[in-house]
Amino acid sequence: MSFKSCHPAMLALGQAPSVIRETFEYGNRRAAEIGRENVFDFSLGNPSVPAPGSVHDSMTHLMQDVDSVLLHGYTSAIGAEPTRKAIADDINSRYGAGISASDIYMTCGAAASLTVTLRAILCDGDECMTFAPFFPEYRVFVEATGAKFTVVPADTTNFQMNLPAFEEMVSPETKAVIINTPNNPTGVIYTEENLRAFCALLRKKAEEFGHPIYLIADEPYRELVYDASAVVPYLTNLYDNTFVCYSYSKSLSLPGERIGYIVVSPKMQENRMLYAAVCGAGRALGFVCAPSLMQRVVAENVGKTADISIYRKNRDLLYEALQSYGYRCIHPDGAFYLFVEALEEDAAAFCLKAREYELLLVPSDSFGCKGFVRLAYCVTTEMITRSLPAFKKLAEAYGVCGEA
Amino acid sequence: MSFKSCHPAMLALGQAPSVIRETFEYGNRRAAEIGRENVFDFSLGNPSVPAPGSVHDSMTHLMQDVDSVLLHGYTSAIGAEPTRKAIADDINSRYGAGISASDIYMTCGAAASLTVTLRAILCDGDECMTFAPFFPEYRVFVEATGAKFTVVPADTTNFQMNLPAFEEMVSPETKAVIINTPNNPTGVIYTEENLRAFCALLRKKAEEFGHPIYLIADEPYRELVYDASAVVPYLTNLYDNTFVCYSYSKSLSLPGERIGYIVVSPKMQENRMLYAAVCGAGRALGFVCAPSLMQRVVAENVGKTADISIYRKNRDLLYEALQSYGYRCIHPDGAFYLFVEALEEDAAAFCLKAREYELLLVPSDSFGCKGFVRLAYCVTTEMITRSLPAFKKLAEAYGVCGEA
Repeated sequence: MSFKSCHPAMLALGQAPSVIRETFEYGNRRAAEIGRENVFDFSLGNPSVPAPGSVHDSMTHLMQDVDSVLLHGYTSAIGAEPTRKAIADDINSRYGAGISASDIYMTCGAAASLTVTLRAILCDGDECMTFAPFFPEYRVFVEATGAKFTVVPADTTNFQMNLPAFEEMVSPETKAVIINTPNNPTGVIYTEENLRAFCALLRKKAEEFGHPIYLIADEPYRELVYDASAVVPYLTNLYDNTFVCYSYSKSLSLPGERIGYIVVSPKMQENRMLYAAVCGAGRALGFVCAPSLMQRVVAENVGKTADISIYRKNRDLLYEALQSYGYRCIHPDGAFYLFVEALEEDAAAFCLKAREYELLLVPSDSFGCKGFVRLAYCVTTEMITRSLPAFKKLAEAYGVCGEA
Repeated sequence: MSFKSCHPAMLALGQAPSVIRETFEYGNRRAAEIGRENVFDFSLGNPSVPAPGSVHDSMTHLMQDVDSVLLHGYTSAIGAEPTRKAIADDINSRYGAGISASDIYMTCGAAASLTVTLRAILCDGDECMTFAPFFPEYRVFVEATGAKFTVVPADTTNFQMNLPAFEEMVSPETKAVIINTPNNPTGVIYTEENLRAFCALLRKKAEEFGHPIYLIADEPYRELVYDASAVVPYLTNLYDNTFVCYSYSKSLSLPGERIGYIVVSPKMQENRMLYAAVCGAGRALGFVCAPSLMQRVVAENVGKTADISIYRKNRDLLYEALQSYGYRCIHPDGAFYLFVEALEEDAAAFCLKAREYELLLVPSDSFGCKGFVRLAYCVTTEMITRSLPAFKKLAEAYGVCGEA
């Protein structure tokens, strides 16, 4: 008979092995065997610096000054007006984006920003594209809507968006494209030139197909940028039909608190209709409102960031050392990931070899790109320093010889 | 052409008028005109008593004692183990349910508990049933999965589950039934007799159809019970294939903080498979983890409740007065709602008439049952006292004459 005890796709997702989780769990077992200080775990993209002190200051005074029923009560589904206003003002002051509070929808973090946006726009038969390498949950979120997910292959020379391949692959079914800059897993920031060329291409194709193509900018790493020369343009300024999906997980180091937002660009065609669809999708998915205390905390801390100088220090230390040992590293301008070419063709095999030196790395295959590994450097600087001899020995084991 | 700018069902949901919201907004406009103290707003089911003091005590000591990176970091997707353990222990100590931490999945509140559970089990072609009157978002959540939503008509004599109608309507397509006790909008607690008869019927029909029928117990009001004689049996003890969907919104007065859980009964057939499907559904819908600080707060406050004696006082005051004015009230044993028969056939027209006396009530039509109004008595006792003469005049306007 055809009865299914549960939804087969949900079961498959729930049972799917995760390389990252498996690596992390291996690390815990190994730490129990040989001591935590002897295991060099670069597998997890979890912020390693505390929230700014002002976050706890806000929480403390809010608990004192605001009535419990108001503080912990429901906000409207779109989010508290003062929070949306503070965010809009902050975005406008930095990017001149002309956004108003009514263009913002508060969410339970970046994943929710994406699932709500995707659910609002994608219908059966639609296609959503992204550029490799990409955060693997994009596939999960898109396919959960019933739409088709298509990946543009990576440009492995510089990991900018591969526009020639995109132009060939984009189709009349393409309703949306997700981009992620600064990028997970490469740390690369798409250049303004690359972004402008991409947006021009989107406009051209939208006109050719006779319907809008939505740009979904997944931006949890927007503030994690380490070089004054590196600029992350604000996408609504470059392309009208843009949704910005944001989260405070990284900028305020609050990943567990699940707080973020969606911007429905005021310049979007049928902006009010799309905003209403976002509200409908949030409702259908069961997001009643974003966490209320954190909405107030955000209102008081917009524009602040955790101390990202630690990530910069880690990046410089790791990048320079690995380059000197002979690894080919993609220079990360932002986020907290380093993308390194594996020293053998099979990145998974290379990661297993690295484990012999107690180095826990993630192969790039699950990011839709072969032959590289991702190192999350949101770890202690001390661990990086301790790990460097292991990286050197690993390179030597492959006969790679650096300058050092 | 067939291109749709957004998902039509999501747009419809986002644009759908809400009687409750409209009533609430009318109340705000009216309060600006004649003064807040002269408007008697019974429209919203928002807790009106503060969180227990121990919640803020927990928050304060957690901010002091736990490292920020841990406190606000991601937990595992299923929730922190100590929180799940504390909840399981509390449930077991009260109900002897034999639940373990691994049967619990932490969620962002009751709505998320429902959307995740429904998404885990419902496939296209499946049917999910509920009993009128019911919380209207059930329809939204079920239909978002693609399944069919079917409502069993109310038994308006006592608002217990209408089992003869259920037995006629249940079909081989029925995969799940949502029940809600204490009930929104009636405040009625289903009796143990009614529940046992229902579970026996489910078992009989499951055997007849050759497949399980899941019971989804939506229990945000479990602890809001006012009479020692009123008992809310724990459903996993009565029926093996049970999911319990819980939220701390009402018990701890934290509705805006979005924290709750799902219990996948350990007695469920294929319990591990169903639990995995729940994990997959949480992932697909974009729930990365339940808010991390609140998970720790819950672990320290399981079994505590906000001061519900205020709701009891409100219930007694309102119920007794309205009965004495000649209204037919359904006696509420729990939750914070009073269900009252409208004094004319059309409940919406009756609510408009009530507005002439500054009484803001919600017609029962949106709860799937005609001819009644819902009064949410999670308000100040003072407002109830001030409102009583208006209720009396309203009854008199309909020629209803009470004992008073």
